[in-house]
Amino acid sequence: MESMVIWRERLEALRANKWFEAFVIFVIVMSALLIGARTYDETSRYEQMLRWLDHGITLFFLAEILIRMAAERRLRDFFRNGWNVFDFVIVVASLIPIDDSEMVLLARLLRVFRVLRLVSLIPELRVLMGALLKAIPRMGYVVLLMFIIFYIYGAVGSFLFHEVDAGLWGNISIAMLTLFQVATFESWATAVLYPTMEHYPWAWIYFLSFIFLNAFVFLNMMIGIVLEVMQKENAQFELETGTGEAAEMAALRREVSGLTEQLSRIEQKLDRR
Amino acid sequence: MESMVIWRERLEALRANKWFEAFVIFVIVMSALLIGARTYDETSRYEQMLRWLDHGITLFFLAEILIRMAAERRLRDFFRNGWNVFDFVIVVASLIPIDDSEMVLLARLLRVFRVLRLVSLIPELRVLMGALLKAIPRMGYVVLLMFIIFYIYGAVGSFLFHEVDAGLWGNISIAMLTLFQVATFESWATAVLYPTMEHYPWAWIYFLSFIFLNAFVFLNMMIGIVLEVMQKENAQFELETGTGEAAEMAALRREVSGLTEQLSRIEQKLDRR
Amino acid sequence: MESMVIWRERLEALRANKWFEAFVIFVIVMSALLIGARTYDETSRYEQMLRWLDHGITLFFLAEILIRMAAERRLRDFFRNGWNVFDFVIVVASLIPIDDSEMVLLARLLRVFRVLRLVSLIPELRVLMGALLKAIPRMGYVVLLMFIIFYIYGAVGSFLFHEVDAGLWGNISIAMLTLFQVATFESWATAVLYPTMEHYPWAWIYFLSFIFLNAFVFLNMMIGIVLEVMQKENAQFELETGTGEAAEMAALRREVSGLTEQLSRIEQKLDRR
Amino acid sequence: MESMVIWRERLEALRANKWFEAFVIFVIVMSALLIGARTYDETSRYEQMLRWLDHGITLFFLAEILIRMAAERRLRDFFRNGWNVFDFVIVVASLIPIDDSEMVLLARLLRVFRVLRLVSLIPELRVLMGALLKAIPRMGYVVLLMFIIFYIYGAVGSFLFHEVDAGLWGNISIAMLTLFQVATFESWATAVLYPTMEHYPWAWIYFLSFIFLNAFVFLNMMIGIVLEVMQKENAQFELETGTGEAAEMAALRREVSGLTEQLSRIEQKLDRR
Repeated sequence: MESMVIWRERLEALRANKWFEAFVIFVIVMSALLIGARTYDETSRYEQMLRWLDHGITLFFLAEILIRMAAERRLRDFFRNGWNVFDFVIVVASLIPIDDSEMVLLARLLRVFRVLRLVSLIPELRVLMGALLKAIPRMGYVVLLMFIIFYIYGAVGSFLFHEVDAGLWGNISIAMLTLFQVATFESWATAVLYPTMEHYPWAWIYFLSFIFLNAFVFLNMMIGIVLEVMQKENAQFELETGTGEAAEMAALRREVSGLTEQLSRIEQKLDRR
Repeated sequence: MESMVIWRERLEALRANKWFEAFVIFVIVMSALLIGARTYDETSRYEQMLRWLDHGITLFFLAEILIRMAAERRLRDFFRNGWNVFDFVIVVASLIPIDDSEMVLLARLLRVFRVLRLVSLIPELRVLMGALLKAIPRMGYVVLLMFIIFYIYGAVGSFLFHEVDAGLWGNISIAMLTLFQVATFESWATAVLYPTMEHYPWAWIYFLSFIFLNAFVFLNMMIGIVLEVMQKENAQFELETGTGEAAEMAALRREVSGLTEQLSRIEQKLDRR
Repeated sequence: MESMVIWRERLEALRANKWFEAFVIFVIVMSALLIGARTYDETSRYEQMLRWLDHGITLFFLAEILIRMAAERRLRDFFRNGWNVFDFVIVVASLIPIDDSEMVLLARLLRVFRVLRLVSLIPELRVLMGALLKAIPRMGYVVLLMFIIFYIYGAVGSFLFHEVDAGLWGNISIAMLTLFQVATFESWATAVLYPTMEHYPWAWIYFLSFIFLNAFVFLNMMIGIVLEVMQKENAQFELETGTGEAAEMAALRREVSGLTEQLSRIEQKLDRR
Repeated sequence: MESMVIWRERLEALRANKWFEAFVIFVIVMSALLIGARTYDETSRYEQMLRWLDHGITLFFLAEILIRMAAERRLRDFFRNGWNVFDFVIVVASLIPIDDSEMVLLARLLRVFRVLRLVSLIPELRVLMGALLKAIPRMGYVVLLMFIIFYIYGAVGSFLFHEVDAGLWGNISIAMLTLFQVATFESWATAVLYPTMEHYPWAWIYFLSFIFLNAFVFLNMMIGIVLEVMQKENAQFELETGTGEAAEMAALRREVSGLTEQLSRIEQKLDRR
């Protein structure tokens, strides 16, 4: 039991070691480069070497995660941290033995996600990702509103322009994809608007209203976010400055109350004579 | 009379029921899916079924709006809420019997707008829409200024480049549409600027000045909005913190006045002796 | 002399009359529509009528500006207002008799600018334009920096890619226009980058560094503007709230000084006995 | 020794002279125009003249930098200023004699960077550049996160779409360039998405998720920057207003303490009798 505690402490020291951390980052970058290298046809003759390197990296990641698990006092603590669960899933997923040649693609895709371990290792990226995740609910309803606009315009576009170009307006899914293309302004006039206007000269109303509606919702979303950020900032500012000033003010009022009491004593003494 | 009140209360309870609300949302989503399904050619063999479903949804919406009308104390109250009027118009519009086969398209388009009822049902979307509508007057004059810029450039472009490409500069409407395409940067150089420069080598001045003017007005609009949002925020911040601090200050001054009075009394007593 | 004063007052009343102002706006809009109508080939058969309408509008504008000049106490006052000078130039420019058929185009272009009189007439648009003009110096140095970046990249691009496509990189002016096209992302990859990369595989460094530099300068400009707007806002906020609070504080300190004096008097009286 | 000091002072006066500075700016602009002129084929017959002008400008820049070096008390001081080092490198780089005809291009490119001396000479541009450089670390981690997203999507895209179009997805470098094209919305739908969807109908998930992820990271970066700018602003605002108010408050408390002491003296005098 004693020896286990000593081992745990050694592993904890290893985990916290700056050089060990740098080496882990180095291996992740190596792993990323290995994945990138495989996309070049020229690397197929080094196949055997790449495979060995890949196995080596997989084993290293396994060892590293086992060290981090063993370094915790209780295994539960390890899984309480979301980033640990994230690392664990990525490492375990790349362990699954895939011998079937057809599954090679899937195996490669799974190995790609190892690059994401960089995010869990570098604190600044972790903070950035946290901020990104926190912003998701705030965006939710705007995305829903956007989807409703796309759905309505998609249905209308599919009903109206169905026969103009089935490749652009064939059904509501295709129409919504076309509308997304319009929303990004990609060839929206030359490839979508003008061919449609040849059959429906008033089609520009459909497209311009869609673009203005989108721009309008987007602009309002931006303002909404700036406003929210500012409200939080102001609330905190108020709290911080408020505390300092309020304390000063309270002290001053206590002193003035002291004066009042002192004066009352003096008045009583004068009366008593 | 008594029984009517009981009925009204039952309908009011039904309207406020969370499950009933969820079911209404479910029917709206169903209605949206039905509209989407109709855009697929493959669904034409289920025509009869889709028609029955459509009738069912129309009747359900009618029933739901009648329940909500009956649940109000006075019918006037129902129509006072803009969202109720909005729902009523959508439901009534889809009731109009359109037997004429040519009108089928119109009937379908009217049904599309049922999806908008999601906005009137989900409070967060209602808030978002309210914010959007509130922003319209603020945008009004910027849009007018933009329109004037487009009109002037459209007239100039139509006069100058009329003979270069009548499809792009034929008259002021076509020229303004071309300018809108230029403003979205869609093929503005390859399809509009370069062909024009072949005849008018100085045409780039026209296009670049237009793009800069647009970017400039847009940037100023953004700043204007941020400034306005901030002014409102600061005013509210000032009000909120101001009230707290001003009250504190007023209390302090009242206490100091009390001290002055007390001292005057002491002074008089000393004088009186 | 007396009658002149009466006349001036009558003209001043006319100028301030809401209906007269509305009629002027109506004539400007008519003038704009007339200009727009001329861009349609179909209107050439109403040529005579359009010409009479045009003369009528020119005379009305002349009459209106003479009324506004006569309504001023001194002519100097009229020209002190920038918007009056603006109106005067536009009206006078469209008076120049152009009989030469070749000059017809110039005459039409001059008439287009009459639409700008809407800006000088509607106060909200005047405020907007004032804000736009005020922002110009702030933008000046950013535009200069941008121009330097464009000039350097234009020269480098012209030296390097001269032989790839003379139509895109022939000399520094053409190269800078191509770079502007790249900056707006219009066909920058398919029509500019990929053809260049066929001869210079490393050309992507040139293009990507240019795009990043542009995005970077643009982003910093946005932040700079937001920061400046905020500084002004905060300064004003400080001033406004500062004044209120500072006055309260000064009053309080005066009262406390009054207390000190009163106490000194009491102390002296006690000592005197 | 005496004469050297006099010379140094004369050079210092020359360096600070407004006309000398304006002349330096004029020479830089001339140098820029010379570089631009060389990109025109028509200028090849003035080759000899351009060469003499170029030599003249090179010598003037050398003289100018020697004056500025001699005007410093110690040579070390000159190299302490980053902008001086910047100027020195640019001037020295254009001095390297390149006779080899193949190196002419390099010589020309080096001369282009002389335009950057405008930035080091105009104080407003120097401030702007300083702000740009200060913003780089703040952007660093966002760029790293963006790069990770591009790398993962590039690898996945290269694995999946390799056989659809080797020119777009051949290896990870090409795929990342294609993704950059998609991120700028250039022909992303017509030239990249639709051809890919012909083989992989679900490819739109890959592209839309990539676009949304990018937009999301970008939006968050913007908010992050606005928030950071605001925090700095608020902190400074708090400091500035805080100092003023805190000093007022401290003075007030000192006065009230004075009152308390005075009252204690009065009380003692009353007791003593």
